[in-house]
Amino acid sequence: MYTYSYLFDFISLVLRKMGFSEEDSANCARVFMAAELRGISTHGVIRLADYFKLWEAGRINVAPDIRVVHETPATAVIDGDGTIGMLPAVKAMNVAVSKAQTVGAGWVAVRNSSNFGIAGYYAMMALEHDMIGFACTNASPLVAPTFSAIPMLGTNPVAVAIPAGVQPPFVADFATTPVTRGKFTVAAKKGEKISFGYAQDAEGNPTDDPTAIEHGGSMLPLGGDREHGSHKGYCLGAIVDILSAVLSGANFGPFVPPMMSYLPLLDQKTGEGWGHFIGAMRVDAFMPADEFKARMDKWIETMRGARPAKGHDRVLIPGDVERENEERISREGIELLPQVIVDLENIAKKICKKFGY
Amino acid sequence: MYTYSYLFDFISLVLRKMGFSEEDSANCARVFMAAELRGISTHGVIRLADYFKLWEAGRINVAPDIRVVHETPATAVIDGDGTIGMLPAVKAMNVAVSKAQTVGAGWVAVRNSSNFGIAGYYAMMALEHDMIGFACTNASPLVAPTFSAIPMLGTNPVAVAIPAGVQPPFVADFATTPVTRGKFTVAAKKGEKISFGYAQDAEGNPTDDPTAIEHGGSMLPLGGDREHGSHKGYCLGAIVDILSAVLSGANFGPFVPPMMSYLPLLDQKTGEGWGHFIGAMRVDAFMPADEFKARMDKWIETMRGARPAKGHDRVLIPGDVERENEERISREGIELLPQVIVDLENIAKKICKKFGY
Repeated sequence: MYTYSYLFDFISLVLRKMGFSEEDSANCARVFMAAELRGISTHGVIRLADYFKLWEAGRINVAPDIRVVHETPATAVIDGDGTIGMLPAVKAMNVAVSKAQTVGAGWVAVRNSSNFGIAGYYAMMALEHDMIGFACTNASPLVAPTFSAIPMLGTNPVAVAIPAGVQPPFVADFATTPVTRGKFTVAAKKGEKISFGYAQDAEGNPTDDPTAIEHGGSMLPLGGDREHGSHKGYCLGAIVDILSAVLSGANFGPFVPPMMSYLPLLDQKTGEGWGHFIGAMRVDAFMPADEFKARMDKWIETMRGARPAKGHDRVLIPGDVERENEERISREGIELLPQVIVDLENIAKKICKKFGY
Repeated sequence: MYTYSYLFDFISLVLRKMGFSEEDSANCARVFMAAELRGISTHGVIRLADYFKLWEAGRINVAPDIRVVHETPATAVIDGDGTIGMLPAVKAMNVAVSKAQTVGAGWVAVRNSSNFGIAGYYAMMALEHDMIGFACTNASPLVAPTFSAIPMLGTNPVAVAIPAGVQPPFVADFATTPVTRGKFTVAAKKGEKISFGYAQDAEGNPTDDPTAIEHGGSMLPLGGDREHGSHKGYCLGAIVDILSAVLSGANFGPFVPPMMSYLPLLDQKTGEGWGHFIGAMRVDAFMPADEFKARMDKWIETMRGARPAKGHDRVLIPGDVERENEERISREGIELLPQVIVDLENIAKKICKKFGY
């Protein structure tokens, strides 16, 4: 078990040694650690090694000039200058909040970025300003549109955070696929099958093989198959891709570059890096904030009060599980997988060697 | 088979006789007919009888004062004054477009409205202004949140329309459930079962009974069950409900009033009528419109160019099916179900009797 501050300091220090400024390193470490605390460890410390290897390969800019390149009172486009995704995403939400303070709503498209960790982190930044926060991002292609045999879209997550009064906030944060890719890895390691509705093989046939993606297969959009509404999951993933990348000037669809340093960059580009789309709307641009928050409390209490289905003991509000994880993990400490510990030790060794410690 | 103009004139005339102004009648008729042309006849002429009966019951305001009751440069709240949903929704998109023209984006929450027909109609209004259009609405409770035994949310559809250049626009318009309720009705009439993943019984158990909803059961959110991501469909339906109704001052969740005149109004209210949330963003608030449209063409051509899955001959772009329907139905004419023709004849007879024709 590790403490928050131990891992936060470790991540910050690694990023500092990679060349990021002290402020940038801390901003990134906060996002990594938010994923750990919220129990989304697939987007936590485990990913540090990916960025470290990209840096070793000279594929990440540690001293970026993150700039607003286009704007109106309610919108902006930010160029991330090829850096780690957390930095332009944090800046994008700060710009969105500032615009929402002035005109009621702010929407920022980001290009030339990379994987930004958990989308919920940015959406939740709006809460302290009594705003509704939105964040989504495109990602490397893994998901086949309905009727496609090949992956054309990322798992393209969406996050929406909505403030409440005495109740905790509503925080939805989900990939536009039935499950995350992590489930495939775990099933493969255990020698288990995955449920039908998660993946298809290289011909586009349904499969329960957790290694299908490594053999030319694809993940399926939310809905799973056409009969169960996969075209709606495809719509969602497509909307995220278009807002994040077509609108910002980033690479879209199958052109999104890989985050793994061992994968070659693609021959064809349709823009710069990955794209995100981030927004904020001031609650009191619609009604007094206290009135809205009291209404949200009533909404939350109403849903929580629904009679549970047989075999279940409660109806959850989006964000409940992650908030309860956060309370528990803050108390108990953070557990890392043995392989992650090895990765971190290797990073530490490489840094010691490079800097002659 | 009926022509567009015959049915358009019929609907307009009925609405005129109910007391709507000429302009309002035409605006509503256009939305009904858009549903027919796009092949979404579940939201077309068949619904006229519902509104007619609500009017007979004195539950719809035919001379509404539809007002902006709160606004900032990028946001507004509209009160629909208890009228038919199309009218405040059209006004909301006009206000959103006007705000987007001024500050880049406009977002309008609507309260005190009712069923507005197809969400896609309003989203598509933004296209001619080179804007991205959004529209969603809440609706009467039919859908159970994940782990709930009872319906707490409507089928809460979402529409997003995005302009392209030489390609037709991207138009996504979908309920946040695997299928629409219409599938249940059709299966029940044919004596067939529905697929698992569409509905649950009154205890919250999975069912293939198409009449489950009439016996205390519920529709399921997109995803179907927790294993296949129904909590994500629940998130989507919840976000639509909160933006449409909590933020506007409409009734939310299980408090949304019924659209059927034979169902009593609910004892408890949490606002006024139904709620919608409608928005527009100017494309050139992000990048030159021509550049964006060329990028959208490339996006569409890329997805269309994906190798089809076995047994399929092409990958569709959201909006393709409805646009092809529109081309075909405009040419061939509109077919109405025998029961719909009877309903329209009854409406005509009642009007003739009332006005002494």
